[in-house]
Amino acid sequence: MNPLDNIRIVLVNPLYGGNAGSVCRAMMNMGLSDLALVAPRNLDEQEARTMAYRAVDLWERRRVFDTLAEAVADCGLIAGTTAREGLYRSHSKTPREWAPFLLEGAERNRVAVVFGPEDRGLTNEDLALCTQVIQIPSTEAYLSLNLAQAVMVCCYELYVASGRFEARQEKSPLASTDVRERMFGLWREMLLAAGFMEPEKADHMMLGIRRIFARSPLTEIDVNILMGIARQVMWYTRRHESKDAPPEFPTIGN
Amino acid sequence: MNPLDNIRIVLVNPLYGGNAGSVCRAMMNMGLSDLALVAPRNLDEQEARTMAYRAVDLWERRRVFDTLAEAVADCGLIAGTTAREGLYRSHSKTPREWAPFLLEGAERNRVAVVFGPEDRGLTNEDLALCTQVIQIPSTEAYLSLNLAQAVMVCCYELYVASGRFEARQEKSPLASTDVRERMFGLWREMLLAAGFMEPEKADHMMLGIRRIFARSPLTEIDVNILMGIARQVMWYTRRHESKDAPPEFPTIGN
Repeated sequence: MNPLDNIRIVLVNPLYGGNAGSVCRAMMNMGLSDLALVAPRNLDEQEARTMAYRAVDLWERRRVFDTLAEAVADCGLIAGTTAREGLYRSHSKTPREWAPFLLEGAERNRVAVVFGPEDRGLTNEDLALCTQVIQIPSTEAYLSLNLAQAVMVCCYELYVASGRFEARQEKSPLASTDVRERMFGLWREMLLAAGFMEPEKADHMMLGIRRIFARSPLTEIDVNILMGIARQVMWYTRRHESKDAPPEFPTIGN
Repeated sequence: MNPLDNIRIVLVNPLYGGNAGSVCRAMMNMGLSDLALVAPRNLDEQEARTMAYRAVDLWERRRVFDTLAEAVADCGLIAGTTAREGLYRSHSKTPREWAPFLLEGAERNRVAVVFGPEDRGLTNEDLALCTQVIQIPSTEAYLSLNLAQAVMVCCYELYVASGRFEARQEKSPLASTDVRERMFGLWREMLLAAGFMEPEKADHMMLGIRRIFARSPLTEIDVNILMGIARQVMWYTRRHESKDAPPEFPTIGN
């Protein structure tokens, strides 16, 4: 069972169709699919569909309730979001802190995450129905997030906490030491052949070159590209022995 | 110095004013203020102002550049966001993974976080200018986030990583053991006085009561409320000795 399937997003008295549509897209991006609206206020349907974009199916499958109590009647955990201070609000935690707890709850129970309307947030009566209070981190300068943005942050934290996302992995394996050393050997030859450094300074210069390439791990693909460059430059210098003075190297500030 | 002041959000060829405005609000929510647009495409100014809402100042202070290279010319780190796979894209990390690295960079350098246009994302040429690649976690079913939502997730991760957010703390201290025990003593008296339990079953029932109140820590305010209830019920039972049979307790399923 995927616990994300057991988590319902509830919008209380939403005002703007664009926000409701953006909520659908955010939910689908983050693997959620159960949307409930409580007494929506004349949402612009067309705006909702436009902003839902490829998540328009999720918009079609929304359910509408008259009261918050009905929308969460079957839920074991109900997390309400609030930016304001006051009674019932001081024991709030961040979405990142609550996410593992809500997901664990969703293994066995329906879980609701509840968002207030754009113009006033959840009331004390709404929050009294909630078993958890979520406060999304934001600056004192501008505490209140756009509704769809608040939903995104919560859905994102739930999805990340679910462990279902696997970052794209670099497919090429890291180059082993002997392959890397072969590459540095070729670069040394190339830089000498091209007259970049004097033989007596080569050891010192190669430390600088090594430092550049050591900042992050090199894959086999990377090392193949770097060896190819060295081979090509050496091939070129062998065919075109230069009798001119070397060019000035441009440096920062030139 | 606040490193968040050194982080620039760059929108390449943005298409919709509403998204650009939402970006301003998300940035201000998360403590960022430097917005650059690269060759915007006829953004609807009114839509931008409406969605920026209280962040309309940030919208006014945006800078517009002809090319991405100009927009990030003074930046030491440039993190590009992409949802697609392909060349330059496989060594991406999530915003959570990159955030500490970008913030550390922003202690000494200007840092840019770059977002592609709504209809096609960043091109390979754009990504070639980037020193880091960000992939925002999302489901295979719908990889691509709305532009303003993508900006929000990145700004949110930077703000959280900055450690500048302090969650609202419960002001009342936790009740000490002796205060909690006094409360349980009063509840025992009350439940006996009200006929909720027989004296010989009291120890057993009190374990259930303790379990309910032990699930989460009780503050001094909580304990004061619970002691007040016990005192009031005991006062009531002393004044109105009942000769009737006790009521049926409703249970789940009744």
